[in-house]
Amino acid sequence: MSGAATVAIVMGSQSDWPTMKCTADVLEELGIAHEARIVSAHRTPDRMYDFAKGAADEGFKVVIAGAGGAAHLPGMIAAMTPLPVLGVPVQSKALSGMDSLLSIAQMPAGIPVGTLAIGEAGATNAALLAAAILGAHDPAVMERLVAWRAARTAKVAERPE
Amino acid sequence: MSGAATVAIVMGSQSDWPTMKCTADVLEELGIAHEARIVSAHRTPDRMYDFAKGAADEGFKVVIAGAGGAAHLPGMIAAMTPLPVLGVPVQSKALSGMDSLLSIAQMPAGIPVGTLAIGEAGATNAALLAAAILGAHDPAVMERLVAWRAARTAKVAERPE
Amino acid sequence: MSGAATVAIVMGSQSDWPTMKCTADVLEELGIAHEARIVSAHRTPDRMYDFAKGAADEGFKVVIAGAGGAAHLPGMIAAMTPLPVLGVPVQSKALSGMDSLLSIAQMPAGIPVGTLAIGEAGATNAALLAAAILGAHDPAVMERLVAWRAARTAKVAERPE
Amino acid sequence: MSGAATVAIVMGSQSDWPTMKCTADVLEELGIAHEARIVSAHRTPDRMYDFAKGAADEGFKVVIAGAGGAAHLPGMIAAMTPLPVLGVPVQSKALSGMDSLLSIAQMPAGIPVGTLAIGEAGATNAALLAAAILGAHDPAVMERLVAWRAARTAKVAERPE
Amino acid sequence: MSGAATVAIVMGSQSDWPTMKCTADVLEELGIAHEARIVSAHRTPDRMYDFAKGAADEGFKVVIAGAGGAAHLPGMIAAMTPLPVLGVPVQSKALSGMDSLLSIAQMPAGIPVGTLAIGEAGATNAALLAAAILGAHDPAVMERLVAWRAARTAKVAERPE
Amino acid sequence: MSGAATVAIVMGSQSDWPTMKCTADVLEELGIAHEARIVSAHRTPDRMYDFAKGAADEGFKVVIAGAGGAAHLPGMIAAMTPLPVLGVPVQSKALSGMDSLLSIAQMPAGIPVGTLAIGEAGATNAALLAAAILGAHDPAVMERLVAWRAARTAKVAERPE
Amino acid sequence: MSGAATVAIVMGSQSDWPTMKCTADVLEELGIAHEARIVSAHRTPDRMYDFAKGAADEGFKVVIAGAGGAAHLPGMIAAMTPLPVLGVPVQSKALSGMDSLLSIAQMPAGIPVGTLAIGEAGATNAALLAAAILGAHDPAVMERLVAWRAARTAKVAERPE
Amino acid sequence: MSGAATVAIVMGSQSDWPTMKCTADVLEELGIAHEARIVSAHRTPDRMYDFAKGAADEGFKVVIAGAGGAAHLPGMIAAMTPLPVLGVPVQSKALSGMDSLLSIAQMPAGIPVGTLAIGEAGATNAALLAAAILGAHDPAVMERLVAWRAARTAKVAERPE
Repeated sequence: MSGAATVAIVMGSQSDWPTMKCTADVLEELGIAHEARIVSAHRTPDRMYDFAKGAADEGFKVVIAGAGGAAHLPGMIAAMTPLPVLGVPVQSKALSGMDSLLSIAQMPAGIPVGTLAIGEAGATNAALLAAAILGAHDPAVMERLVAWRAARTAKVAERPE
Repeated sequence: MSGAATVAIVMGSQSDWPTMKCTADVLEELGIAHEARIVSAHRTPDRMYDFAKGAADEGFKVVIAGAGGAAHLPGMIAAMTPLPVLGVPVQSKALSGMDSLLSIAQMPAGIPVGTLAIGEAGATNAALLAAAILGAHDPAVMERLVAWRAARTAKVAERPE
Repeated sequence: MSGAATVAIVMGSQSDWPTMKCTADVLEELGIAHEARIVSAHRTPDRMYDFAKGAADEGFKVVIAGAGGAAHLPGMIAAMTPLPVLGVPVQSKALSGMDSLLSIAQMPAGIPVGTLAIGEAGATNAALLAAAILGAHDPAVMERLVAWRAARTAKVAERPE
Repeated sequence: MSGAATVAIVMGSQSDWPTMKCTADVLEELGIAHEARIVSAHRTPDRMYDFAKGAADEGFKVVIAGAGGAAHLPGMIAAMTPLPVLGVPVQSKALSGMDSLLSIAQMPAGIPVGTLAIGEAGATNAALLAAAILGAHDPAVMERLVAWRAARTAKVAERPE
Repeated sequence: MSGAATVAIVMGSQSDWPTMKCTADVLEELGIAHEARIVSAHRTPDRMYDFAKGAADEGFKVVIAGAGGAAHLPGMIAAMTPLPVLGVPVQSKALSGMDSLLSIAQMPAGIPVGTLAIGEAGATNAALLAAAILGAHDPAVMERLVAWRAARTAKVAERPE
Repeated sequence: MSGAATVAIVMGSQSDWPTMKCTADVLEELGIAHEARIVSAHRTPDRMYDFAKGAADEGFKVVIAGAGGAAHLPGMIAAMTPLPVLGVPVQSKALSGMDSLLSIAQMPAGIPVGTLAIGEAGATNAALLAAAILGAHDPAVMERLVAWRAARTAKVAERPE
Repeated sequence: MSGAATVAIVMGSQSDWPTMKCTADVLEELGIAHEARIVSAHRTPDRMYDFAKGAADEGFKVVIAGAGGAAHLPGMIAAMTPLPVLGVPVQSKALSGMDSLLSIAQMPAGIPVGTLAIGEAGATNAALLAAAILGAHDPAVMERLVAWRAARTAKVAERPE
Repeated sequence: MSGAATVAIVMGSQSDWPTMKCTADVLEELGIAHEARIVSAHRTPDRMYDFAKGAADEGFKVVIAGAGGAAHLPGMIAAMTPLPVLGVPVQSKALSGMDSLLSIAQMPAGIPVGTLAIGEAGATNAALLAAAILGAHDPAVMERLVAWRAARTAKVAERPE
């Protein structure tokens, strides 16, 4: 879903897509227009600079950035836009995402990144947190978010099997 | 600042206040109405349930929750409100906040908490992220946030001394 | 085994069952009535609240709670019941249960959770600790526990092969 | 408090006493007879064997063991008594108790130790968990435990200051 | 190789044998009489007590103990014999042997365990260190050790392929 | 020392200067022209872009960047200059520089940062590594580096006192 | 590629080659003469001593050393040559390279090693950093390095698929 | 105590002496001739080579090496002598000795170091393990070791105070 996208999903590499697709899928389910791009802090710093500086003007309301290892993308985007930025630590090969988590969460005072869990759970939750942010001023989104959560709650069985 | 507070600052214990006061101070600087309460997930679970379930009706738009150690407060509030919840891992005594960080960030798919850095940096940033969230629909807040950030940037000296 | 169940086994998700089934199996071997339920702190907070507040009245004497990642279930139940609560850190995907362990063990003063090892060893031991707790006042249980342990000791070969 | 002590508090060294005194203090507040001894797994293994093997006969119902670093005391006692054993990881100098926590919590299947948090919080909680265990069959203890917890809850202020 | 065994190889469980067999194999290559036994600190504490107290009288000169998780075996044996005790941290399932390593290495002042690396490298090296210990007073062993090491050095290729 | 500076020392904040001054001091001792600037990846991203893109044209041959926490400065500069970039992980408050180390060292394939040790040792060594890099083509620098190292070696006493 | 090799690639064992081959491949792509050797700090200390002391005389300008576990090779070579030494932490079996990373990066003041990321990313980047070091005085190498990086940047797709 | 020293105590730096003095003190108490030297793997590699290669000829029977951070000294000495080498991880500033521990303990198969605990406990225990090694063939040393341990056991009070 794209067009008048309100949520940007950016990631450092094609290899982050299997994780970040969870974000796109949940936004899709919630009927929130979004757009996914590859924006590498390290390989395409100019693209990142342009993206971050122009994100508000493009009409995005929330930016979700996924990255692994020395994961600089979420923090650097947050340094260049006043939009809320959410960070998803992608599970890295050697250190299982502990490096990604610390690189994203441990931002210095002044530049916030709302960090989610490592991996697919975090990618899913980034979409939900974006919905909550948008829902604060868009009752229709809030309603769909509440329904999404209620449906999920309803699916929890009483007993394991 | 309180009254028509739009941001709730909750914390598990009085001992978290020196950290969470950074959140209150920045919100104050940004002219965002807020209210700070002690809501312990473990010692006052009923108060937490009431707070979380009623937060939206109280008019809060964002909840910021600080906690240390087995820091359950942010995640439990997030489980009971569709509002965006931001979590601040308070630096713990033995493990320096690594336990707080993991307890807050590693939420399962379905219930998001936007996690900030351990300690005062994170508390400061929670206020800024709340401002960004509110600013998406409140140009006056966004303007003050942008000015706050610009002022901070302007204060960075050219050379160390 | 259920009915006049004295031990409740609760877990946050169906995916915790392969681990927590070890608890059920050992309780079965020890002839201790038990009941397993899915109670998610995050997806079904009301169910958790009701369970925890009513556990003593339901006749449970011990609660065993298993959870992974930001594992809030054991601690939150302990916050709402005076019954002894034992926590089993389920092995998580990215961090291998280190997050689960810290989220369960690092409870603040006032609300105890008796934490076992990560994974199946911990789930097995939760059953044995529950038996020891019950056995303090039920000689038949104690006898079966002692026999169970003795049988296990007897099975230790003299030499590796 | 001693005499017909039902809870044994053992620790590996005099240096663990500032931590473990929290256990004694809370048991005192709860009116639970207890007795504190130094039993070093490493320096006095014979004393440990004698203590562990005789604990049930001495009339103890629960054993609380505190130790730091390569903390073998709780697990070794658990290996030699069917009584419920609770372990308190004492904060160690170099690794802040992470070594103590893993040495106590990561017991193999067959021999359980109910592990509490690192340091004074854990020592406090060991007393409360012991009370919960005893309270399952002693309504007076349970009543005092519930009152203790209620008093603590009542002391939580509404707002930080 | 057994009989007038000078090195005892003990391990907590049959499941440690694939690791500890490396110790036996190297001792075999070095012509050092050894004997492997299963001695579980937790499941067979009496057997451990008897083994440790009698190890010197049995004629052992060095004890090599392997264990995983809350690995208490090496330290407990060291507490009950003046013989040199070497510890091998077996790689554990959830924490990859970090728990084993800390449980073995972080012994308090007074009771030493010479700790080797996690897993097969450590098991191999325990045999070599035992040989070095014996070789200090047995020129034939020292000669075979030196030859073993020289042969290994000679096998290092000049270039990778 | 500045002017025809060949080494740039940049750091994210004035608070990094006590660490990074070690770099400046050693370069001074080695007679290598250098210049220290505050360039914050997060608070002054434009300054960072300008610095990194222009560093080669300014005549710098090596860039040394120090940063703490989510330390993005070294990696981001490396993304925008082909010059060799060395990173110094500044010791952070909560996590003692483990976050800084991982944020700097765990760069993805394509953009290298030569990472030194956490804190003052690393800052000192960054200067020495820069000297080695310059010395490869400047015999005078190499000579001074060799002399500096020899002097340091000569100062190592034979015996502790 | 060998002959008038300017970059030495050394590694502790044949088993490090799959990782270190990435270094060789990138140097090959950049047209930088290099030579790969097995030099084990532990099994061939004499060879290491000879290599390190003679590396400058052999005409090498940069040494890249890869090692895993207690990875002493890069630091020991750095102790015996004034050439710039880059270290690649090879991913180890039990601890995934965290031990390798700390053993290489945490060098004391006086002897620098420029440490890259764990595993293949680090091996790739060691080659690029060596090229940057050589390129400071060899415009042809710098040109090829810039082209290599530009080609890589050009390959970054706009959108994930 | 020196002269016909049988135990060599070496350390990387004068700053390790406060830790390693514990080794010397205990050897003194046990009447074991020893000699302490500063031998830095990184600053005095030649001295280290000479020491390690000549240690056996100097008459040493055991080498105890203490080092912190990227602690290469014990492993490198072990690579160049067939004598038993014991390693003491000195507590480092940033990482509290976790780096020292891993750098010493995680040796590859072929070259063993018997690693003790981080800091003074480990330094004390290195002396005791050396005594146990020597005692295997020197009844007088063994007798003094047994007495030393017995005296320590005798000093353990019955109750904390």
